[in-house]
Amino acid sequence: MKISQRGHDIQASPIRKLKPYADQAKARGIKVIHLNIGDPDIPAPGPVMDTFHNWSQPVLGYGPAQGFLELREAVTRYFANYNIPLGADDVLITTGGSEAIHFTFSVLADVGDEIIIPEPYYTNYNGYASFAGVRIVPLPLSVEDGFRLPPVEAIEAKITPRTKAILLCSPNNPTGTVYTPEELDRVVRLVKKHDLFLVGDEVYKEFVYDGLKHKSILEYEDIEERVVVVDSISKRYSCCGARIGMIITRNKDVYAAALKFAQARLCPPSVEQMAALAAYNMPMDYFQGVRDEYTKRRNILYDGLKDIPGVVIRKPQGAFYVIIRLPVKDVEHFAVWLLSEFSLDGKTVMIAPAPGFYSTPSQGTDEARIAYVVNEHELRDAVRIFKAGLEKYRAVHG
Amino acid sequence: MKISQRGHDIQASPIRKLKPYADQAKARGIKVIHLNIGDPDIPAPGPVMDTFHNWSQPVLGYGPAQGFLELREAVTRYFANYNIPLGADDVLITTGGSEAIHFTFSVLADVGDEIIIPEPYYTNYNGYASFAGVRIVPLPLSVEDGFRLPPVEAIEAKITPRTKAILLCSPNNPTGTVYTPEELDRVVRLVKKHDLFLVGDEVYKEFVYDGLKHKSILEYEDIEERVVVVDSISKRYSCCGARIGMIITRNKDVYAAALKFAQARLCPPSVEQMAALAAYNMPMDYFQGVRDEYTKRRNILYDGLKDIPGVVIRKPQGAFYVIIRLPVKDVEHFAVWLLSEFSLDGKTVMIAPAPGFYSTPSQGTDEARIAYVVNEHELRDAVRIFKAGLEKYRAVHG
Repeated sequence: MKISQRGHDIQASPIRKLKPYADQAKARGIKVIHLNIGDPDIPAPGPVMDTFHNWSQPVLGYGPAQGFLELREAVTRYFANYNIPLGADDVLITTGGSEAIHFTFSVLADVGDEIIIPEPYYTNYNGYASFAGVRIVPLPLSVEDGFRLPPVEAIEAKITPRTKAILLCSPNNPTGTVYTPEELDRVVRLVKKHDLFLVGDEVYKEFVYDGLKHKSILEYEDIEERVVVVDSISKRYSCCGARIGMIITRNKDVYAAALKFAQARLCPPSVEQMAALAAYNMPMDYFQGVRDEYTKRRNILYDGLKDIPGVVIRKPQGAFYVIIRLPVKDVEHFAVWLLSEFSLDGKTVMIAPAPGFYSTPSQGTDEARIAYVVNEHELRDAVRIFKAGLEKYRAVHG
Repeated sequence: MKISQRGHDIQASPIRKLKPYADQAKARGIKVIHLNIGDPDIPAPGPVMDTFHNWSQPVLGYGPAQGFLELREAVTRYFANYNIPLGADDVLITTGGSEAIHFTFSVLADVGDEIIIPEPYYTNYNGYASFAGVRIVPLPLSVEDGFRLPPVEAIEAKITPRTKAILLCSPNNPTGTVYTPEELDRVVRLVKKHDLFLVGDEVYKEFVYDGLKHKSILEYEDIEERVVVVDSISKRYSCCGARIGMIITRNKDVYAAALKFAQARLCPPSVEQMAALAAYNMPMDYFQGVRDEYTKRRNILYDGLKDIPGVVIRKPQGAFYVIIRLPVKDVEHFAVWLLSEFSLDGKTVMIAPAPGFYSTPSQGTDEARIAYVVNEHELRDAVRIFKAGLEKYRAVHG
């Protein structure tokens, strides 16, 4: 009566693993500023809240496995604003972007197959790879050049007979990098040459700064059969707790297989789908205010950290994260120390050690992911506390 | 660029596969009475709706991976009403009972391992078995004796070195059978003898009729480390669309592994969890009215079908389904015919062909699952239409 090997092996969430230390700090009366998790502090839009308040359907029944048609249609109108033509039957609503990743991995790859992902990468890909028995093959990137994609030969060297897909997350969690059209072209050429799928995680699509435009892999019409995009309202509309995501693909085989997996779990949450509909029905200028707010925060963080001796940081272009190098030997030890032994004015900060974003062993041990999802005032304070903490830590621990 | 083998292999939902025929019937102006799906028509309780209407948290953030503590505590109070002592840390909130099944299969069994399930069984077990690469070993039951469990030797004969668990669903979907304490004892002895887990799907716990009491496998204290119960508010509180379920286990290893899977998908829906909290906070006498209603319906259905020549039906004791044998060769053909070629007074009925509930090939081809989740008046009408349909079908198709 032992649990399964995979139950043993699946990675505990590295983002959440420090939580007990944060809880203990809070219990001691220390205020913990969370730079460790991408949970936006921006309120959900009014129309989302109105959906809850005005809910009048007495029976909370199952919806369609692929999600409500009204919502799928609203999603196509949203993409039409980006000149990306889609039909409602190219959109499959999932329970969060997480489920979209899970279904996508399971539909594109069998047990033992490989998916190439630039590293560092969003840690929850590992969980779903474990679930699906799929091997993630990391493509190492580097903080020095701002985590740009390597030359085509370096990417190609990772392709084996078991490779089924390449996954690109842009704007990137955890690095903040937005891939250029030229970088995307490089990968598009490879998926054609090697007959692969191209998976795009584009949940941060609107979070691009300095006038940059996000290019979606859905814009490559000549590979449209190869493209699967996983998407979510969590960040786009500050609705992490709603658990509404989606798969977008014009490949009918992929869609049909994902739908069978979707049928097994019956349907996504009904009320929250209607809340998502309200969000997608908002005018596109909603994003401008959000983008301005995050640009301001990005600047505060970047300007605050870039001149710290020993810190390596490149200005992030998108999402609301950045991976930085720190002048410490063991970033996990430092992160725990910040929570358990340090405070300034009764406050400390929580950061996410980068090793959780790497699958290559012993990578990222001197790097951390910083999220800027706290308000301007708090972020300035957090930068000040972080600097003081780092200085003190180095004095104590060399 | 082909999709995965498992994407090909996973079973399309047999419950939903007839939907196109139903849609076409509706398009022709025929009213379709749904006896095919267990989607209760009973409104969600007032306190659930109040939760939506009174929602006032502006930020819809992530919650804990294991679910909100308040909800987990409310669940333990609910079980205390049944004299089943649990701690909040024995309860892990999932996105629907579906996810609870998925996590449970993945935690108890590795790829190629086996779980024994009495057959016919809830069809979505197959989807999650495919996901997890787990083999379901069916234990054949029979409509003639009301789908009672076979003697201990017959169950034991299904156990192999790869068997990890036995799963019992009681009250049973799709058969309506409620296992007696003696039947449970038989299985409990076996899981001890062969060092197995015992999984209980008890989502219909309150739906037991004729004064019967449901016995939970959580009541067996001497095997408490072996027990994992999957549960859900979908049926209990008529909240199918809320997608709130849970795993209940006192085994800390199982819980810890399930939690890691749970972390990978971040959290269950927030607002809906609070709606579930409102439901669990209702007094237990809420169930009496629901039980009375379903008892009445069960009687209408049973009395209406039992005397049809060639129909084999045993009086179901629980849930709101029954599997019946029909005097037809191919029940799927009959079900499609009812939708596409038959109507009475502008109405027809939709039934669920039983083969989808069997994994043994060519089983259940003359059986159907009938759900009684439509109101009394409509159910009487449905029985009348079904009888007329069956008579006409036999006249035409022998």
